[in-house]
Amino acid sequence: MDIDYREFRDADPGSRVLMGPGPSDVPPRVLQALSAPCIGHLDPYFLSMMDETQRLLRWLFQTKNALTIPVSGTGSAGMEAAFVNLVEPGDEVVVCVNGVFGMRMADVTERLGGKLIRVDQPWGRAVDPEAVRKAVKGRKPKIVAVVHAETSTGACTPLEPIAAIAREAGALFLVDAVTSLGGIAVEVDKVGIDAVYSGTQKCLSCPPGLAPLSFSDKAMQALGARKTKAPNWYLDLSMVSNYWGAERKYHHTAPINMIYAIREALRIVAEEGLEARFARHLVNHKALVAGIEAMGLSMLVPAAERLPMLNSIRIPEGADDKKVRGALLKDFGIEIGSGLGEFAGKIWRVGLMGHTARQKNVFLLLSALQSILKAQGVKVGSGAIEAASKVFSKV
Amino acid sequence: MDIDYREFRDADPGSRVLMGPGPSDVPPRVLQALSAPCIGHLDPYFLSMMDETQRLLRWLFQTKNALTIPVSGTGSAGMEAAFVNLVEPGDEVVVCVNGVFGMRMADVTERLGGKLIRVDQPWGRAVDPEAVRKAVKGRKPKIVAVVHAETSTGACTPLEPIAAIAREAGALFLVDAVTSLGGIAVEVDKVGIDAVYSGTQKCLSCPPGLAPLSFSDKAMQALGARKTKAPNWYLDLSMVSNYWGAERKYHHTAPINMIYAIREALRIVAEEGLEARFARHLVNHKALVAGIEAMGLSMLVPAAERLPMLNSIRIPEGADDKKVRGALLKDFGIEIGSGLGEFAGKIWRVGLMGHTARQKNVFLLLSALQSILKAQGVKVGSGAIEAASKVFSKV
Repeated sequence: MDIDYREFRDADPGSRVLMGPGPSDVPPRVLQALSAPCIGHLDPYFLSMMDETQRLLRWLFQTKNALTIPVSGTGSAGMEAAFVNLVEPGDEVVVCVNGVFGMRMADVTERLGGKLIRVDQPWGRAVDPEAVRKAVKGRKPKIVAVVHAETSTGACTPLEPIAAIAREAGALFLVDAVTSLGGIAVEVDKVGIDAVYSGTQKCLSCPPGLAPLSFSDKAMQALGARKTKAPNWYLDLSMVSNYWGAERKYHHTAPINMIYAIREALRIVAEEGLEARFARHLVNHKALVAGIEAMGLSMLVPAAERLPMLNSIRIPEGADDKKVRGALLKDFGIEIGSGLGEFAGKIWRVGLMGHTARQKNVFLLLSALQSILKAQGVKVGSGAIEAASKVFSKV
Repeated sequence: MDIDYREFRDADPGSRVLMGPGPSDVPPRVLQALSAPCIGHLDPYFLSMMDETQRLLRWLFQTKNALTIPVSGTGSAGMEAAFVNLVEPGDEVVVCVNGVFGMRMADVTERLGGKLIRVDQPWGRAVDPEAVRKAVKGRKPKIVAVVHAETSTGACTPLEPIAAIAREAGALFLVDAVTSLGGIAVEVDKVGIDAVYSGTQKCLSCPPGLAPLSFSDKAMQALGARKTKAPNWYLDLSMVSNYWGAERKYHHTAPINMIYAIREALRIVAEEGLEARFARHLVNHKALVAGIEAMGLSMLVPAAERLPMLNSIRIPEGADDKKVRGALLKDFGIEIGSGLGEFAGKIWRVGLMGHTARQKNVFLLLSALQSILKAQGVKVGSGAIEAASKVFSKV
């Protein structure tokens, strides 16, 4: 069994404008850090980089939680880690489902033998706290879980009301912040979040491969009180925390270069500052929406429930979903996302995440989309750029 | 809660000579590929890179297995993936334990509710097939599992005899090839391996973060015949395989840039060729051993059972383990590994993996070690470089 190495050419992915549901555009500084020489996972210099990464992550999460680390896998590994460490067979888990990622939390819960109490909510809308209150009433769930930013629809669920319900019920509050972290506030200590995870390839603009995660003391106590070992050695946080903690006990080899990259991405966030970063995401979102609406297209999510970093646009009548996305990619190098589940073929998902959230990208997308739709014979209004400009000029 | 970004300086890990148990030295070409612009995980160009990566991995594993992929996690995630997909509660699993990584397989088996049949063997030695035969006798285990290259000791267990025992028993043959793949032959189809996993940071000389894995048709059938869903969404290969297969169904976001890197590392392996690569590992190993023995030091593992890429050297009397490793790192930039478990403080583990396995590194380590030991008052023989040279000159 042989192979001819000449069939495989130099990697040349070119460049894209990543306006899908993630990954987002990665700044050159992060790519440069990623390619620094690899050193050992117990090297004193690497240990100091781990410490710094943890300090930056605690700041980003606005938490004092000791266990605040990047898990060695993509965002979904963060979800897996949060659930597999906290859910034991028979545990009652309330899971809010208003999109694909809520469904995934429900799936993970059942795989672990948790007793799933599912709060189904309309897709494209925020989760209604009253529905959660009803589900919790008369129960003592171990966990109440919600997706902060539902990437499949662009709906944002405010965390405080559900945190209060979880607290009153004595439950751990578990939050999926994969798409929200770094784009809108995720204030772990203030809100009272016990377990939270995210991804690197959304509003942090780092390549995919790590899942920032934080566990409160209450979550750590629940972990310590387990009757059984987690059915997952790789993500067992009782061991992983010994490597990230003072002991530095070897568990698994950390993804060294990815840690370089997230540290650099976090430095960039720190340089910009959280308030400025959130404001930037917001203005770009508003400008995009103004342009989209000027074209006569409409948004899926009601204005008050929209995420700034993930914009679901209803596909207008007469437009060919695949052809439009194909032309955006082929002619302009722009990637946008398709609809998932019940929204397949019905919406486009436009990401304005991290480094991608810039005026030039908003203008580029609006002008490209307008041109492509017109070429397909779809009637679109003019004035998209003017409408978007107006939003930017107010800043 | 605020942070001063000026406290965090540019990443500057410097450079090391990575002669520990992994990571090994990463060639500049791999680092360059790693830092190519990030594109989407469903981008047509990225999908073509995935296809190429799979073709290269099949060649490296010498297999036709359709499910041959890099799992999105470090080597231990490969172990987790292999076990969590194949072991259901109550399944009998024979696990050979002759070091840390055999112990880990036993731990994972028990976490999954498997009925563990543990074959304990002396650390620092290969697994004796007769012990496996005895353990299997009169049973119908679902899996027989062995570590090919025990990284904690440097012992190599030949696979054929144990494969035959597994086959006769109708069991799946599961192999940990984390440290062997790319350094010695791992012939999946010829040997009859049903599930195998590896890591990128050993003999492939790619940064840590991915776990090459291959499942035979028989393993895929066992996966398909599960009565329960795997208690792990992230590593559920029945879903992961739909993303890597023709369907391209989104599961989790692939670690894009790490895929660039492994593809480049595999290209380099293909350019060198397997025979030449294995021969290079062997001659460097032999030269190192000749030098070590010329100094009057001795190897832990009997000559016939040694791995070429992981060399366990007994710490000579009078030498201070930590001080020696500290001086190697501080004065020469050389990382070597310490002993684990019962060998803590008793051995040094010297890796000659992938890009690291070069004459200049063998010479550097021998000369540095000789100088440091002498400075610590340890009596060491001279002539290490001469002895090593002799081995190289024979090639």
